[in-house]
Amino acid sequence: MSGHDAIEVISAKRDRHELSDSQIDWVIDAYTKGVVADEQMSALAMAILLNGMTRREIARWTDAMIASGERMDFSTLSRPTADKHSTGGVGDKITLPLAPLVAACGVAVPQLSGRGLGHTGGTLDKLESIPGWRAALSNQEMFAQLESVGAVICAAGAELAPADKKLYALRDVTGTVEAIPLIASSIMSKKIAEGTGALVLDVKVGTGAFMKDVDQARELAETMVALGTGAGVHTVALLTDMSTPLGLTAGNAIEVAESVEVLAGGGPADVVELTLALAREMLAGAGRDDVDPADKLADGSAMDAWKQMIRAQDGDPDAALPVARESHVVTAPSSGVLTRLDAMAVGLAAWRLGAGRARKEDPVQAGAGVVWHARPGDDVTQGEPLFTLLSDDEHRFARALESLEGGFDIEPAGTSFEATPLVIDRIG
Amino acid sequence: MSGHDAIEVISAKRDRHELSDSQIDWVIDAYTKGVVADEQMSALAMAILLNGMTRREIARWTDAMIASGERMDFSTLSRPTADKHSTGGVGDKITLPLAPLVAACGVAVPQLSGRGLGHTGGTLDKLESIPGWRAALSNQEMFAQLESVGAVICAAGAELAPADKKLYALRDVTGTVEAIPLIASSIMSKKIAEGTGALVLDVKVGTGAFMKDVDQARELAETMVALGTGAGVHTVALLTDMSTPLGLTAGNAIEVAESVEVLAGGGPADVVELTLALAREMLAGAGRDDVDPADKLADGSAMDAWKQMIRAQDGDPDAALPVARESHVVTAPSSGVLTRLDAMAVGLAAWRLGAGRARKEDPVQAGAGVVWHARPGDDVTQGEPLFTLLSDDEHRFARALESLEGGFDIEPAGTSFEATPLVIDRIG
Repeated sequence: MSGHDAIEVISAKRDRHELSDSQIDWVIDAYTKGVVADEQMSALAMAILLNGMTRREIARWTDAMIASGERMDFSTLSRPTADKHSTGGVGDKITLPLAPLVAACGVAVPQLSGRGLGHTGGTLDKLESIPGWRAALSNQEMFAQLESVGAVICAAGAELAPADKKLYALRDVTGTVEAIPLIASSIMSKKIAEGTGALVLDVKVGTGAFMKDVDQARELAETMVALGTGAGVHTVALLTDMSTPLGLTAGNAIEVAESVEVLAGGGPADVVELTLALAREMLAGAGRDDVDPADKLADGSAMDAWKQMIRAQDGDPDAALPVARESHVVTAPSSGVLTRLDAMAVGLAAWRLGAGRARKEDPVQAGAGVVWHARPGDDVTQGEPLFTLLSDDEHRFARALESLEGGFDIEPAGTSFEATPLVIDRIG
Repeated sequence: MSGHDAIEVISAKRDRHELSDSQIDWVIDAYTKGVVADEQMSALAMAILLNGMTRREIARWTDAMIASGERMDFSTLSRPTADKHSTGGVGDKITLPLAPLVAACGVAVPQLSGRGLGHTGGTLDKLESIPGWRAALSNQEMFAQLESVGAVICAAGAELAPADKKLYALRDVTGTVEAIPLIASSIMSKKIAEGTGALVLDVKVGTGAFMKDVDQARELAETMVALGTGAGVHTVALLTDMSTPLGLTAGNAIEVAESVEVLAGGGPADVVELTLALAREMLAGAGRDDVDPADKLADGSAMDAWKQMIRAQDGDPDAALPVARESHVVTAPSSGVLTRLDAMAVGLAAWRLGAGRARKEDPVQAGAGVVWHARPGDDVTQGEPLFTLLSDDEHRFARALESLEGGFDIEPAGTSFEATPLVIDRIG
């Protein structure tokens, strides 16, 4: 691992050379240990963003990040494992109904999750709105819960891919987030280190997603599927639409409530559709495509698994959820058909209301967020509620309203409307 | 100056946009104050290196670096001012005879100089081998010496373009030195802030230079001439050869000795030629092309100015110079004509002998360096001395010898040899 230095590795990528295995291993190890400084790694990250990486380089980079920490192993569990990762969207509460649903089908879901940053919410932030629920579990607790309940959603420990943790925080402040090699290796290093047997990637495309463009999203999906497959994880990706937000809510407690509706057999059609599509892929990946997850929603066993999962982490699934102190209703300015509802506009509004955070040390408001009362294709009536904004701080409404301006279109009744498909493509 | 943030500026350059005046002013000011962090500036520097900058952006960047500190003003001096900057070469002691020579011609030379880093030596390191000489002068001392002696070579104070000082140190460790916009603005911000009326740039090209390629060197020269001219400084650049080292010595005290030979009317022909060429440009730039600097070498007035200049900074121009404790002679392996002597090989050898430093906090050896006893075109005789290596540490000879391997060619007597011209082109 010796014989390298930071300037040599940076210069090689700067000058469009392919980095050797030994250069990659060295730079990740040295960065984790603080031998390579932040200002050196950010220059390298920018060179990677602008000059790219080959599939071989990305695979090695991912391996080196995995090797920077511990690797979990679920092979002693009595059931197969499957996990899901979403690249982040607005109203994307899918993990909440999905994990207990798949568990109810006999496949264990070891979901190590993160907190939200920016306009897309975090799964842990949403779950933390449930009274008593805690995100931090020891490895022993996690194993025990996977064996007993079959599903766990918890915070990734500091031991899992620490190089990625450090690099992710650096990219966030240096304009180097948008590099497909770095996004793919960041996601896959954590998922491979987590030790899941199967993995389904929900790669979002559209205004509210990180990837605005379907070709870029496809490249990211293909890169990640190749990384997972290469590491022996059964990996499939769905490209799904994120030009419209998912469901009818974006926030924390309000998304938990919507998830519980889905587990109770109701909920918005798009949330149910995507939950089932992802569940089927996870079950297929884990060799359990004999089970139909729709049955487990219908017979209440998914809801049972949810309650067990929440209770196992000290949460009370039957407790009342927090409610925002203030609310503000936006009515439809005209009557007709809602033909567009922009995911980014809604996400930004929810974020400005306090549902998300600007910096990773900021708190979030459990009750804050946006509820929309119609989805594209629905009829709306002038003067009737179109959005309900929720926040603990009244002063936040003005800027949230600004972000909703121009974020939707209402066209005359009878205007033909064609819904975009939710699942755009499948890669695997 | 408000309304900007680091990620916005980094992303703009990353995405190949032209930075606005306001973005440039903000980022340089915020970096100087520590609001923009090193890891953000290094990502921006890499984006600039890979995506380039327009002439307008470079000019504004230079202005912003000048505005980060103080600006000197020599307009109250009784004579015009002219300065020279070299992009750095091996055996490049030209500033030493040049400054007093131009002063003897009636033009004041306010040379704010730096220390060497890497294989090219620094002017201050060379002068510090003179017993008693000091590099640090107050502004008052500098003014007084320019009025009385007409030449000063001293260390640039911390007040001059502090943004550049910080950025230069950062580029040095992040693989972002090799960006023409950053090189040009770094050099020119200091020279414009220094307040010289005329400026001659010696842009080196060849193996021992920073620019290996004549097109790149020309682009750098043209960029700098445009910056200087735009700032009202009469600026000219000479592209000069640095495939062969200058003179017969590379080191510190040994280069001072060679410079004194030139001032005494002797010295190697190439050093004399380049000194006179640069002196003529400086005099022309300052409106004094009526004076022939060759006369001032011949009549001893340049030597008088040298002695006054050294004494004014507490040095003893007549004292014996330090001598290295150890020496090692390399003899010619065959007889014939020396057809090639590689500047990089010689520079690296001198550096490894202790004449240069690896890190800016390292000391240099006053007596260390390389003397070569023949220049390309000269006859050499097998067994006769070809190089003399000088160092205080005997153990340094082995690695210095390694760097000289393959660094020269001796061909059979009578082989035709055509010298490359020293001055390749003039831009201005």
